[in-house]
Amino acid sequence: MNDATDRTRYSALLHAAGTHYVDVLDQRLLPHRVQTQRIASADDAAIAIRDMAVRGAPLIGAVGAYGLALALDTDTSDAALSSAHAMLDATRPTAVNLRWALDRVHARVVSLAPKERAHAAWAEADAIFAEDVSINEAIGRHGLSLLRDIAREHERTVNVMTHCNAGALATCGLGTATAPIFLAHDEGMPLHVWVSETRPRLQGANLTAWEMAQRDIAHTLIVDGASGLLMRRGDVDLVIVGADRVAANGDVCNKIGTYDKALAAADNGVPFYVALPSPTIDWSAPSGDAIPIETRPSTEVLEVRGRTSSGDADGVAIAGDGTRALNYAFDVTPQRLVSGYLTERGLARDAAALRRLFPERAPR
Amino acid sequence: MNDATDRTRYSALLHAAGTHYVDVLDQRLLPHRVQTQRIASADDAAIAIRDMAVRGAPLIGAVGAYGLALALDTDTSDAALSSAHAMLDATRPTAVNLRWALDRVHARVVSLAPKERAHAAWAEADAIFAEDVSINEAIGRHGLSLLRDIAREHERTVNVMTHCNAGALATCGLGTATAPIFLAHDEGMPLHVWVSETRPRLQGANLTAWEMAQRDIAHTLIVDGASGLLMRRGDVDLVIVGADRVAANGDVCNKIGTYDKALAAADNGVPFYVALPSPTIDWSAPSGDAIPIETRPSTEVLEVRGRTSSGDADGVAIAGDGTRALNYAFDVTPQRLVSGYLTERGLARDAAALRRLFPERAPR
Repeated sequence: MNDATDRTRYSALLHAAGTHYVDVLDQRLLPHRVQTQRIASADDAAIAIRDMAVRGAPLIGAVGAYGLALALDTDTSDAALSSAHAMLDATRPTAVNLRWALDRVHARVVSLAPKERAHAAWAEADAIFAEDVSINEAIGRHGLSLLRDIAREHERTVNVMTHCNAGALATCGLGTATAPIFLAHDEGMPLHVWVSETRPRLQGANLTAWEMAQRDIAHTLIVDGASGLLMRRGDVDLVIVGADRVAANGDVCNKIGTYDKALAAADNGVPFYVALPSPTIDWSAPSGDAIPIETRPSTEVLEVRGRTSSGDADGVAIAGDGTRALNYAFDVTPQRLVSGYLTERGLARDAAALRRLFPERAPR
Repeated sequence: MNDATDRTRYSALLHAAGTHYVDVLDQRLLPHRVQTQRIASADDAAIAIRDMAVRGAPLIGAVGAYGLALALDTDTSDAALSSAHAMLDATRPTAVNLRWALDRVHARVVSLAPKERAHAAWAEADAIFAEDVSINEAIGRHGLSLLRDIAREHERTVNVMTHCNAGALATCGLGTATAPIFLAHDEGMPLHVWVSETRPRLQGANLTAWEMAQRDIAHTLIVDGASGLLMRRGDVDLVIVGADRVAANGDVCNKIGTYDKALAAADNGVPFYVALPSPTIDWSAPSGDAIPIETRPSTEVLEVRGRTSSGDADGVAIAGDGTRALNYAFDVTPQRLVSGYLTERGLARDAAALRRLFPERAPR
């Protein structure tokens, strides 16, 4: 367990050195119940990712990496390595961090003797975990200076809007979009966060609002459709969202509804930032059109889950029987609507600037 | 009861000649239960409007008018007339039809001898009802020619997107935004309707999807945040929404989330039409900034209502205890984002064209 995760007061993912399992928070139960789930096999990891007990691009990357290490605990053969890689990779198609983390562990171990593989895989997964913590903190520092500029200019509470959950629960550390908010709050900046509920799975209402409450950060929940009005009223100083995959041209694939917020921000002159750890950049995708958009079960739209009046978790049907729904989980925000990308190496204003920040990774 | 309402297969509002009550569908129970509620006093009408058993700008205008007639059944004094007018007017602040209908009944009766007032008020309310039915049909015909143009051009299913419910349930007749859809379906045009669920109260999921199912019109439910992606993918041919109040400059106040859809439509070259009965135009409001935006209880955001797995109606809490929410019920779409206004007198492309269509009402 990394010290930095103590600062979040809870951890989306814990791995204690020497153990052959990881513990994750079951995020499907939040905010009504805080319960951890033990992942002790590659299958456990795949199920946790697929069923969204864990979610968030950086977090599923780390859980995928540990899943591959767990597979190698059982069988260190080439066949087992590739089949576990394929199984884990198939769990969620959109976030690129998962593939990136799996490829990284795979590359680390594939040329080793079988008996050395499991140990090396665990070490690589731990490295991915630790790097994610550092990336989050660096993103936080770069974002903090944006927030300080706004606070200095306005001399009043800074209003940040976010969508979905790109918080500590989506990562191994402070979160991506939330890291600047957490650091600003820690230094006493007066802040208020507009939390967009994020239908269908309500990660804003369930997770982001909960993270803000855990840290005593002022926040207000809104429906997804209210963001345009709030920006038009001048009630939003900036928007910070996370990303599931960013194409080489800067197009941003993120939770459904992100594009609508970017349009509203552009129409009202509100800066729109994307918190972007470099493993989320897919240098091989020329544009957002090349990114596969996951279609999830229509039940997520047709049934809203929460806590009933009797205190039980349940789902309520919101439409008549037989209603058909379509559930694209992500959308694509074109680069032209993005004010900047907050990476671990600093703020990039456009795709060319992103390439300059990561010259060793960007294709020539 | 007007014959035209038979065509809707259910009626949002029924008044049989000679009776001193009206029956309304309790829209809070749809789609899970179809139940009418009798309105037999001005208080009943006020409660039905305030608690949203009835909703939709044209419908609450008509129910308000009948409410004033009911008040005059009991007490025909000037004092009773003004106090009932004030009470009914206070139930919902944004839709202008309510004030328009109340003022119209008031103006019709105020100069009459007290004993003539009740009868005249019922007649005026019936006239408002009948005119709304005609207005809907005229809007439907004008919208139908837009749909025919698209069908001719593409030679495939026409994809219409709508938001909230501007359907038969929002009016006394065929609905406003739905009237062109219903007429096109009746003449056999292949149609598909994207129904945006419309958080917080889910009028899209609860009401519009139900209306489409009742008429066997192909439709798909989506979350509000998905409209941008669908337009970007080319899956939407046009958007038609209703309105709660339109300012003299053409700014449109409508259900929260409408502005976001208009932005997405503009960004993707998708025509964005507003179905606009003339009583919804507030010629005295110079722009959308002059329209009061209703703030409704935060519980509508924090708790989603539906049918539980045991078949009961219940609400589920979607956020942790103590989460604060803000619930603006409407937003404002600026005129520049509107492709046209479908009125009972034809299509107006901008505010100047609207004034030309209604020269006797528009201020000089």
